[in-house]
Amino acid sequence: MTAAKSTKNASHGTHQHGYADQKDALSKRLRRIEGQVRGVERMIDEDRYCIDVLTQISAIQAALDKVGLALLEDHARHCVVGGPEELKADRTEEMMAAVARLMRRG
Amino acid sequence: MTAAKSTKNASHGTHQHGYADQKDALSKRLRRIEGQVRGVERMIDEDRYCIDVLTQISAIQAALDKVGLALLEDHARHCVVGGPEELKADRTEEMMAAVARLMRRG
Amino acid sequence: MTAAKSTKNASHGTHQHGYADQKDALSKRLRRIEGQVRGVERMIDEDRYCIDVLTQISAIQAALDKVGLALLEDHARHCVVGGPEELKADRTEEMMAAVARLMRRG
Amino acid sequence: MTAAKSTKNASHGTHQHGYADQKDALSKRLRRIEGQVRGVERMIDEDRYCIDVLTQISAIQAALDKVGLALLEDHARHCVVGGPEELKADRTEEMMAAVARLMRRG
Repeated sequence: MTAAKSTKNASHGTHQHGYADQKDALSKRLRRIEGQVRGVERMIDEDRYCIDVLTQISAIQAALDKVGLALLEDHARHCVVGGPEELKADRTEEMMAAVARLMRRG
Repeated sequence: MTAAKSTKNASHGTHQHGYADQKDALSKRLRRIEGQVRGVERMIDEDRYCIDVLTQISAIQAALDKVGLALLEDHARHCVVGGPEELKADRTEEMMAAVARLMRRG
Repeated sequence: MTAAKSTKNASHGTHQHGYADQKDALSKRLRRIEGQVRGVERMIDEDRYCIDVLTQISAIQAALDKVGLALLEDHARHCVVGGPEELKADRTEEMMAAVARLMRRG
Repeated sequence: MTAAKSTKNASHGTHQHGYADQKDALSKRLRRIEGQVRGVERMIDEDRYCIDVLTQISAIQAALDKVGLALLEDHARHCVVGGPEELKADRTEEMMAAVARLMRRG
């Protein structure tokens, strides 16, 4: 993501993000997901059964969906609903585009 | 995944797995995904805008879906359709359960 | 959906719903989806090839996802962001639960 | 779906489809889904609360996913694994493309 692209969104500078209170929890969950991905690399390396590898991939997808939903909820609460009046329309549109991408329809 | 659980599947020991010819390609893709997850950790660390973080999460989901579909296709081809006759029924059932999990309906 | 269950949501009576301006467009899309479902019934009846039936089912899923996203966007805009202050917190939570269900994680 | 397009698949004429034994059950489920879609049309007509409409749409998606998975399993069993040797490779590829579409990655 380039700085140029980043200026096109409705973040408007130094505002405190929706997930500020949850940074530690999110970081912990992401480190666990990183470990799960490394676990799948190891399974491939050790020629583990395809179906067992797929089960682990589904578990990672579930964990990522949870992180995505947590971020989205914080964003909706703090940046959209609780955001500055003049940004609400843009941020609602932007949030809906993110929902569509999470639904694989973006 | 415990050894006990692993014996319940239809892998039957030392058979060569469906993805054998693609191990390098799969490992490379998984290392890239691992890097993408670390990238998201960094974004959280740097207080990046929620929507930009969500966009990266959707990109990881897309990459994981591709790995899942590649593994599934190799499995279907080599382990189910091309597998030993006496295991085909069990492996078909097992494969469909994996499809359901990838569709978040498992 | 029972009346009892319906009273638990944050709709609060006779408020005009988010999709009020789009009722005709939504009805038209839903009638088309109804026709697509009837089309699949006919395909089954005529013993059409499984894969062709599955292609039509995926088309219906795509059409339903679009209707879902349209409803969600109207709801976010008019009922959550543009709704009465005292209902915003409940409606945000309710909206996020709907997003989780659309992502098959509800 | 045009006849021209239909000839491109690996169905090869008058073969009995995978779902032959389940036609009644599938038809019944599809008629129920058709009724659910009509129910959503009615909800829109009666200005029901957006979130309640979305809940019903998610229920239809779940029912369609089930029909899709049932068709796919019958197809895998009877048309791919149990199909004629010379069509297995093509049918495996075709089946995987259907899985990708059901995962919204087609």
